[in-house]
Amino acid sequence: MTARSNGEVQEAIADMLADYGHLIDADRLEEWLDFFVEDSVYKIMPRENVVKGLPLSLMLCENKNMIRDRITSLRQANVYNIHVDRHVIGRPRIVGEEDGVYSIEANYAVFQTDQDGMTRVFSVGQYVDKVVFLDDGPKFKEKVVVVDTAAVPTLLATPL
Amino acid sequence: MTARSNGEVQEAIADMLADYGHLIDADRLEEWLDFFVEDSVYKIMPRENVVKGLPLSLMLCENKNMIRDRITSLRQANVYNIHVDRHVIGRPRIVGEEDGVYSIEANYAVFQTDQDGMTRVFSVGQYVDKVVFLDDGPKFKEKVVVVDTAAVPTLLATPL
Amino acid sequence: MTARSNGEVQEAIADMLADYGHLIDADRLEEWLDFFVEDSVYKIMPRENVVKGLPLSLMLCENKNMIRDRITSLRQANVYNIHVDRHVIGRPRIVGEEDGVYSIEANYAVFQTDQDGMTRVFSVGQYVDKVVFLDDGPKFKEKVVVVDTAAVPTLLATPL
Repeated sequence: MTARSNGEVQEAIADMLADYGHLIDADRLEEWLDFFVEDSVYKIMPRENVVKGLPLSLMLCENKNMIRDRITSLRQANVYNIHVDRHVIGRPRIVGEEDGVYSIEANYAVFQTDQDGMTRVFSVGQYVDKVVFLDDGPKFKEKVVVVDTAAVPTLLATPL
Repeated sequence: MTARSNGEVQEAIADMLADYGHLIDADRLEEWLDFFVEDSVYKIMPRENVVKGLPLSLMLCENKNMIRDRITSLRQANVYNIHVDRHVIGRPRIVGEEDGVYSIEANYAVFQTDQDGMTRVFSVGQYVDKVVFLDDGPKFKEKVVVVDTAAVPTLLATPL
Repeated sequence: MTARSNGEVQEAIADMLADYGHLIDADRLEEWLDFFVEDSVYKIMPRENVVKGLPLSLMLCENKNMIRDRITSLRQANVYNIHVDRHVIGRPRIVGEEDGVYSIEANYAVFQTDQDGMTRVFSVGQYVDKVVFLDDGPKFKEKVVVVDTAAVPTLLATPL
């Protein structure tokens, strides 16, 4: 592992988050998957549960294969995605580091546009992530999407 | 005072703004207060008044004690905050520097989610700030929140 | 031309985008024009057309004079702008470089506030730009605003 300055770490993570949002928005979920290590956790939690310490999540993938399966299911469902997403992600905050695992947080807003071209705020919340650096760049060891917006009818369609 | 490059100044201020938004969103207002120096001004101005040169503000704290008092009032009011906030802040622009006081501007959007999990755009506008660097990092000497969104019923509940 | 690191390129382009949004929001369109080179293309395309490879745009300026003319028309129309804009722009992604021309992408959200102080999501989408560096900084050689939000009644009033 190469030594990195704090600035380099933050730039690399900010770039990853921008790419992450882009790949979801572009419906390139197979490439999006590359941001996760094999034993990574991906879950979506309501903010209220996080605050109250309740474990219940809206979606839970306990390893990369579970995330992979979700994408496969999405593709096989063979339904046209009638909404398009657009992520706007705030600057990540590096809140800790232990043994090369960086704890980061970043606010996000996802806007969704329907087939009539009408846009609405779809989901806002916070990414609470653990990031490791591999040879080909930063990866999520854990990604928890803490959603403020609990009223999400189409939540399970695409990742956030 | 240590010499800083323009890049370092901007990174430090961008980090401060991200932390600033995070602390409001997390309702950690006592820590949020640490971003202000003792003689700092915090005010919320309607954009229209700024454009027309009118002095009238929606909220005015002329020093840190006044900001402190507002937080104390909020805490003593002992009402549950029925909305949660989420800040997404754009990249700060350094627009000037004089005697170590940096003038910066940054666009923001604050989303608010109610108890039913419905999210709406709560306030958008621009931070117009004066920032100084102390030993423990950048602080606001003046923070003017110029709000586009004038129709804000719950404006006085939490800072922006 | 001076050699630039990847980090310097990205910072400079991120700064340009922040300034770009600011100048539109502040209705300083004559200065905003300075971000375009003489033979630059500015167009607004619906996302659907981009995905389907259709050439039809919502607005097309094939050189800087056409952009200049649009601003002149806006000024001469002498109508009061009854909405104000606010841009929040995500981190730019540098997706390629050839002969000093950088291909970049960045997500944006534009909020519009009416005279009653009510704010709504006006347009979200992606900037897909080609950027060159001149002596006085980065400029757009091409700017394509890919809009998710097709239902834009007041689209032609101001640039995005």
